[in-house]
Amino acid sequence: MSLKFITQKVAQAIDEDLMSAAGGFSVDQLMELAGLSVAQAVQKTYPTQKHPRVLICCGPGNNGGDGLVAARHLFHFGYKPSIYYPKQSKNDLYKRLVTQCNNLNIPFVEKASPKESDIIVDAIFGFSFSGDVRDPFKEVVRDLKETHVPIVAVDIPSGWDVEKGDPENQFFSPDTLVSLTAPKLCAQAFKGRHFIGGRFVPPSLAEKFDLKIPKYPEGDQVVQVQ
Amino acid sequence: MSLKFITQKVAQAIDEDLMSAAGGFSVDQLMELAGLSVAQAVQKTYPTQKHPRVLICCGPGNNGGDGLVAARHLFHFGYKPSIYYPKQSKNDLYKRLVTQCNNLNIPFVEKASPKESDIIVDAIFGFSFSGDVRDPFKEVVRDLKETHVPIVAVDIPSGWDVEKGDPENQFFSPDTLVSLTAPKLCAQAFKGRHFIGGRFVPPSLAEKFDLKIPKYPEGDQVVQVQ
Repeated sequence: MSLKFITQKVAQAIDEDLMSAAGGFSVDQLMELAGLSVAQAVQKTYPTQKHPRVLICCGPGNNGGDGLVAARHLFHFGYKPSIYYPKQSKNDLYKRLVTQCNNLNIPFVEKASPKESDIIVDAIFGFSFSGDVRDPFKEVVRDLKETHVPIVAVDIPSGWDVEKGDPENQFFSPDTLVSLTAPKLCAQAFKGRHFIGGRFVPPSLAEKFDLKIPKYPEGDQVVQVQ
Repeated sequence: MSLKFITQKVAQAIDEDLMSAAGGFSVDQLMELAGLSVAQAVQKTYPTQKHPRVLICCGPGNNGGDGLVAARHLFHFGYKPSIYYPKQSKNDLYKRLVTQCNNLNIPFVEKASPKESDIIVDAIFGFSFSGDVRDPFKEVVRDLKETHVPIVAVDIPSGWDVEKGDPENQFFSPDTLVSLTAPKLCAQAFKGRHFIGGRFVPPSLAEKFDLKIPKYPEGDQVVQVQ
C-alpha cells in the first residue's frame, strides 16, 4: 500500500482546516476519535487478558489529550490503565478529560514505571514537537529506550524529529505506531507495526493535501498498514 | 441477558450527571460516541454492498444530532447517506455537524422518501419526547409505518411513548433499535434486533442508577443484546 508521508507544516495545516469554521470540527470531537483510534490499535494488538496493565504517558499538549481519551476507552475495553501526566493543562477540555478518568478511578501516578506495566502508550509529544526533550520527560523518554515492555506511540515517537525521525538512534523505537490522519515524514523509516487512525478526513481535504487514505475495515477507527 | 429498563426521568438524570461539572463530558463528546454507536450498529446489520443508500431522518434536538454524527460516520464506512433535517437547530454544535456533512457532499433532502433508500435511520425524537408528533414529522412517521425498508431507530422509535411504548400500534416498529446508555422502558416490549450503544458509562454511575451494562465486544461501541 502506498502511503503519503506529510511534513510538520502540512500536518498543522490539516488540523487547522478541520477545526476552522469551514471544517466545522471541535477539538473535543477530533480528540475523542483520535483517542479511540489509539485504544482500538492497542486492543487489536495486545489482548486484554495478556496485557492488562497499560501505562499512558501524557505530555502537556494535544498528544497528551489523545492519551487521556485513550485511557478512558481502554478502561471500558477491560484494561487497567494508569496515567502519568506531570504537566497538566489548565485548559477546560483537559481538566474535563482528567475528571472523566478520575470518575473511572484510573490512577494518576507520580512516576512512570515501565516495569509495572504490560504496555506503554507514549502520548508525550505529537506533530507540533521540535527542539529538545526537557525534564520531566527527558528521564521518561530515556527509560522508554531501556524497557522491554511494548510501546505504542501516538502519532510521533516522543523525541523523534517530526520529519527526520531518529537518524542517530538517540531515542526509543516503538513497537507500534498509530499515525493520526496521515503518517508524518518520520514514519517513513519506521519498521514496526503501523496503524493509521482518525477516520474523519473528508475526501476534499485528502485531495487538497494529496493524502492517500487507506481503506479502513468495517466500522473500525484504525487500519493497520504495516 | 438481564437488562435494566429506565424511566424518562432516570434517562434525563444520567445525561445531566454525565454532562455536569462532576461528570466532565461535553455534548460534543457524547454525541460523537452516540452517533458512532448508531453507525456501527448499521454497519454490523446491513452490509454496505447490499444496503448502500441510508436515509437519516433528523429531529430538532439531540436525537437529530446523533443522526447527523451517524451520517458522517456512515459516509466514511462506505455508505451513501442522505439527510432529512427540516427543523435545523441554530445551536453552534448542530451547525458544525451540518457543515461536516456538507463537506462530505452528503445531500440534505427536502422530502423523506423511504422508497429511494435501502435503510432508514430514525433520529427524530429521543428520550425527551412527550406529547403528539407534529408536522412535518407527522407525515414522515406515517410513511415509516407504511414502508418495507428496514428502519434503525436511535434510542426511541419516534412517536412511541418513552415509557409506555406503542400499545395501540399507532406507530412503526423499527427492525433495529439502538438504545443509548441504557434501554428505556418502552424497549421492554420491543421484539426486533436490539443494540446498546454509548460505551462511556462509569461503573459508579451504573451503580447509582442500578444499570446493567452488558459486556461490549472488543473495541466496539455497540453490543447486540437481542
